[in-house]
Amino acid sequence: MNPVDTNGQSAPGIDRLFRANIRAMEGYTPGEQPQEGGFIKLNTNENPYPPSPRVVEAIEGAVRRGLQKYPDPLATAFRVAAGRVLGFDPDWILAGNGSDDILTICTRAFVGSGHCIRYPYPSYLLYGVLGKLQEARIEEIAFQPDWTLSEEFVRPREDLRLCYLPNPNSPSGTAIPLATIESMAERLSCPLVVDEAYADFAESNCLEAVRRNKRILVSRTLSKSYASAGLRFGYLVAHPDIIRQLRKVKDSYNCDALSIAGATAAIEDQAWRRENREKILATRRRLAEGLGQLGFAVVNSQANFVWCTHPARPAADLFAELKKRKILVRYMVYPRWGDGLRITVGTDAEIDTLLSETRRLV
Amino acid sequence: MNPVDTNGQSAPGIDRLFRANIRAMEGYTPGEQPQEGGFIKLNTNENPYPPSPRVVEAIEGAVRRGLQKYPDPLATAFRVAAGRVLGFDPDWILAGNGSDDILTICTRAFVGSGHCIRYPYPSYLLYGVLGKLQEARIEEIAFQPDWTLSEEFVRPREDLRLCYLPNPNSPSGTAIPLATIESMAERLSCPLVVDEAYADFAESNCLEAVRRNKRILVSRTLSKSYASAGLRFGYLVAHPDIIRQLRKVKDSYNCDALSIAGATAAIEDQAWRRENREKILATRRRLAEGLGQLGFAVVNSQANFVWCTHPARPAADLFAELKKRKILVRYMVYPRWGDGLRITVGTDAEIDTLLSETRRLV
Repeated sequence: MNPVDTNGQSAPGIDRLFRANIRAMEGYTPGEQPQEGGFIKLNTNENPYPPSPRVVEAIEGAVRRGLQKYPDPLATAFRVAAGRVLGFDPDWILAGNGSDDILTICTRAFVGSGHCIRYPYPSYLLYGVLGKLQEARIEEIAFQPDWTLSEEFVRPREDLRLCYLPNPNSPSGTAIPLATIESMAERLSCPLVVDEAYADFAESNCLEAVRRNKRILVSRTLSKSYASAGLRFGYLVAHPDIIRQLRKVKDSYNCDALSIAGATAAIEDQAWRRENREKILATRRRLAEGLGQLGFAVVNSQANFVWCTHPARPAADLFAELKKRKILVRYMVYPRWGDGLRITVGTDAEIDTLLSETRRLV
Repeated sequence: MNPVDTNGQSAPGIDRLFRANIRAMEGYTPGEQPQEGGFIKLNTNENPYPPSPRVVEAIEGAVRRGLQKYPDPLATAFRVAAGRVLGFDPDWILAGNGSDDILTICTRAFVGSGHCIRYPYPSYLLYGVLGKLQEARIEEIAFQPDWTLSEEFVRPREDLRLCYLPNPNSPSGTAIPLATIESMAERLSCPLVVDEAYADFAESNCLEAVRRNKRILVSRTLSKSYASAGLRFGYLVAHPDIIRQLRKVKDSYNCDALSIAGATAAIEDQAWRRENREKILATRRRLAEGLGQLGFAVVNSQANFVWCTHPARPAADLFAELKKRKILVRYMVYPRWGDGLRITVGTDAEIDTLLSETRRLV
């Protein structure tokens, strides 16, 4: 069926067709998504509960209305609903195919060849990949030991065009306070995209700062707190003049009809979100305390995961042993920094199984 | 609720945050997607029939399995099914969030600042937008009056990095024969992406050429011949060494769980596709003949639309008059070339209404 030998051999000359930056870079490797079942999956910060039943109903309704027509290019139904919930006019909102799409759009709009992109380290590895795709210079600012950021993060730099600040951060689960972020944004000359993928699990967020400083952009996702990672839906809240330019960069129909319907229903069901949040926060305490009792150093988390290390057992070993037992956590190793385990807050039953299996390993 | 004045006024300084190429360019404007009903919609080449019932079933099954987990980053279920149908190993296939996503990925992978991108004119306006997003030079090669391409299309050029060839082309609906395309690709030093969005309505396609020449890449969509524009699903067929590099450029989870399930079911139902194709081709004949009888010059189409002009009535007027009557066709005006109407093949009833309303206008 396939006459060309493809066992790992590059056909001569093919690589030369690509841009040098693409050839040279590694792609982003997402957390493992085992396609077979049976795993307790605590590795990619998904919500362990199904989304609001209204999401399912809305999608079923959209399927029945038919799929043959293009979706609304601007996902206006979602923008109206989200605007009402968040207190913004719809023209302050840009919808994306997951918040990764939002981050891609922002990077392409602000950052060109030779420009600099800055973000804290360790954090979301995708920022660096997005920068390299643009032939940008990458500046990673190390978190201080207490997971705060030094003045280095706002240091003026001629070629600096975009800063990313994941808040709460992954893998640490820690958050920078609103006042600090606003003060940092004041001193930066470039846009500051606050990546709030996990903000619904935190004590505060930056939305109100978007109104006060046009250079603050807030990115959100429905993957975590709305339990809809499978839908691919995220959004950005920013000044309408920012949104207007970003629309030029996005694919015309970047959100499909089903995800627009599902996301609209999801954000309208704030009672579901609050109830789900309480469950996740209760289980997060249970997880953090349980790990603490097993001797782990656990960082205080404001997200739906915890970051931990064990003084006696290497994280890589624990990861491998748990995986053998069909429990998937995320082993993260950051060059020049260190490694550890990032464990998603699952259901109480999943976390109890994780803790009892881990007990035998430490 | 919104303290900032946004009535068309740019906040001072905001534009300067963007890259110069973004500020300078116009975004791509997709065809009108009226959100209110009641239109006979013949403007964006959608299929007038609902997709295979198996698509609906597959999506409903995926919704029931839950949305809280991330989808398969590589859409392997689709790649296996498509590979079986098309006669390729799955590693020759890249899945995308619509074929626009595929075109975006290709452009970003091959074309950087100062490189040149080439495509015929008039054709899909998005190619130019994608090039400008990359700060590329744009080279539009005019079709000859008979919709063939001259030697100019394969002229060597040092900075040329990517050629797009929509085949069948929009707005003309015409197609370049396979042998000509292979001969052009032989003489080009850069990749040739054959955009086969409409190939399922044509007499031939380029898939077999992909095996013979690694610089030929074929892009497809499920929006047209599978009646799934609302799903956003497209794919590329190319040598695995090409696919491997392109994966670095795509968003990690570019296809959602529902569209993967729907697209897999769609491509597996080839009986549905063939039957739908016959209906569209029959109605295309009816449309072309009817327009011919009304005095239109109609280009012979191999797609699910026809391109026409009338010697006595300006296309812009006809468009406006039809729109008043709730019939939406596409009025296209191409600078330095001309204008006309691109009319999608709808159902027989829709086309009969279009023809009888048009009869009163000419």
